[in-house]
Amino acid sequence: MRILVLGAAGMLARKLTERLARDGVLGGERLTHASLVDIVEPWRPAATTFEVETLVADLAEPGVAGDLVASRPDLIFHLAAVVSGEAEADLEKGYRVNLDGTRLLLDAVRKVGRGYRPRVVFTSSIAVFGAPFPAVIGDDQCTTPLTSYGTQKAIGELLLSDYTRRGFLDGVGIRLPTICVRPGKPNRAASGFFSSIIREPLNGEEAVLPVPDEVRHWFASPRAAVGFLLQAATLESGALGDRPCLTMPGLTATVAAQIAALRRVAGEEVARRIRREPDETIRRIVAGWPGGFDARRARGLGFRAETDFEEIIRVYVEDELGGRLARAGS
Amino acid sequence: MRILVLGAAGMLARKLTERLARDGVLGGERLTHASLVDIVEPWRPAATTFEVETLVADLAEPGVAGDLVASRPDLIFHLAAVVSGEAEADLEKGYRVNLDGTRLLLDAVRKVGRGYRPRVVFTSSIAVFGAPFPAVIGDDQCTTPLTSYGTQKAIGELLLSDYTRRGFLDGVGIRLPTICVRPGKPNRAASGFFSSIIREPLNGEEAVLPVPDEVRHWFASPRAAVGFLLQAATLESGALGDRPCLTMPGLTATVAAQIAALRRVAGEEVARRIRREPDETIRRIVAGWPGGFDARRARGLGFRAETDFEEIIRVYVEDELGGRLARAGS
Repeated sequence: MRILVLGAAGMLARKLTERLARDGVLGGERLTHASLVDIVEPWRPAATTFEVETLVADLAEPGVAGDLVASRPDLIFHLAAVVSGEAEADLEKGYRVNLDGTRLLLDAVRKVGRGYRPRVVFTSSIAVFGAPFPAVIGDDQCTTPLTSYGTQKAIGELLLSDYTRRGFLDGVGIRLPTICVRPGKPNRAASGFFSSIIREPLNGEEAVLPVPDEVRHWFASPRAAVGFLLQAATLESGALGDRPCLTMPGLTATVAAQIAALRRVAGEEVARRIRREPDETIRRIVAGWPGGFDARRARGLGFRAETDFEEIIRVYVEDELGGRLARAGS
Repeated sequence: MRILVLGAAGMLARKLTERLARDGVLGGERLTHASLVDIVEPWRPAATTFEVETLVADLAEPGVAGDLVASRPDLIFHLAAVVSGEAEADLEKGYRVNLDGTRLLLDAVRKVGRGYRPRVVFTSSIAVFGAPFPAVIGDDQCTTPLTSYGTQKAIGELLLSDYTRRGFLDGVGIRLPTICVRPGKPNRAASGFFSSIIREPLNGEEAVLPVPDEVRHWFASPRAAVGFLLQAATLESGALGDRPCLTMPGLTATVAAQIAALRRVAGEEVARRIRREPDETIRRIVAGWPGGFDARRARGLGFRAETDFEEIIRVYVEDELGGRLARAGS
């Protein structure tokens, strides 16, 4: 099985690649080759039982997508995207990468022809939804994004669905919750603080909280997200009918609940490293975001996420801090 | 007030232009100039109190949209589109005209800058929706199109909404019901037979019905559609909040009810000119279409449509046959 990973330098793609390198198989099939592509040098797994090729290329450049799919990968993970904060700040870049890049990829797959019909796993986002919301957000919620990023992801979903319906590819679009706790440095996503307020205190640093404690949002860990990607890659073809895009499970938590969980896991001293510094722009963006989903369809298809926020923090401690929790003052 | 009409050779645009020529004003403002644009020579109204310019141009060609908006029209009617049947038959043409054309227009408006923020009325379609449907389809129905045409219109809605939210323009997207009875020759819309089975018999000709009599659909007359366009053009700015696209009112009728109405209006002889010739492709396309909507939001904003199918037939007889109904055999 040949795999193509687009956006391979990103945090989630790195974790996905690590996992694939460890497993060597996917859905019972042996991996033979992986192409890892990004606009910067992708991370390369240390030891693999399959061939790994890394490429620096811009999917939004004409011709690039065609070259990437010419070797007919069986499975394509399309994770390449400009994140929400940057797509809002730079309209043209956001549309170029998130819309044109996706469209060029799908068209390149279509043009291969001769029976080529790969599974394409597209990472969409709950940013395709926008307030006002019903009390429980079901799987039939209309996509009325309130950011350019959400707009671009919603358009990607429509293209993926149409191309799947027409038989050019076998798409699965997964709407990721806000991934938390993200390791490493903050990126330009407006949702970044949801991770910072856990990660920085655990690492002995101060974190800034730009929104009120009552803000409620929808979360899953990076580990759960890798699980979503693998599940999406191995879903039976046709399992999604005419609606190949679906909302991933997660857990709903307020910022207050996040902080309380941090306090329980790491102590009061650690939780006190969060400094409240209201930011009206971020508050306004986040006010248009959903607090929680039903996600019944995805759960029924075997997608699984954490069920309480302490578990999400423990996943971070296990996966990123080697399981060692340095309690403040100890 | 300067007006730009894109897709001006189309049936609806022609009726809109006729109406504007007759009125000379719109929303209390005097019309001073109208640019009528299409890929074929647009129809030109006979006598107007304002300047009329007709242009043959392809909106999907780079540079064209920029030229068209350089004179800063206050109001843009964007009706240029490849219809459903053709967009399904010719994927690249559909995406080029319906997606690229729309995007180039919106970007051209954005790039004018210097406070330019015209009302852009975009004709979307109920084809943005796809089965399965709830019993009553509300204004929050998710957009899950089952045709490439519906996909392209749904993408147009997303772009219009994002550009409106960002303040580049003042968009109103109206999801038209199937327009019936269309005058003239059939076009390549898969919905064409809904008009043919009324129009052809009234004109003494045979019509082909490719779907079962039980098929239910959502209709408004061309006259009602012109009313929608004018209402959309003159809606107060901001009246639609963050959701500038909305489903237009109409009436729900089965094919059987259409035929019964034709029989009541024009007699049994006329109704007998409908020949049943099942077409599996059309039946399958139509099976994914909605039967009826709530359209509460649009009604609340003053959009009005017919309430029974006989009225729709009488509108056709008045507007297209000069009010004269030649009863068969008379």
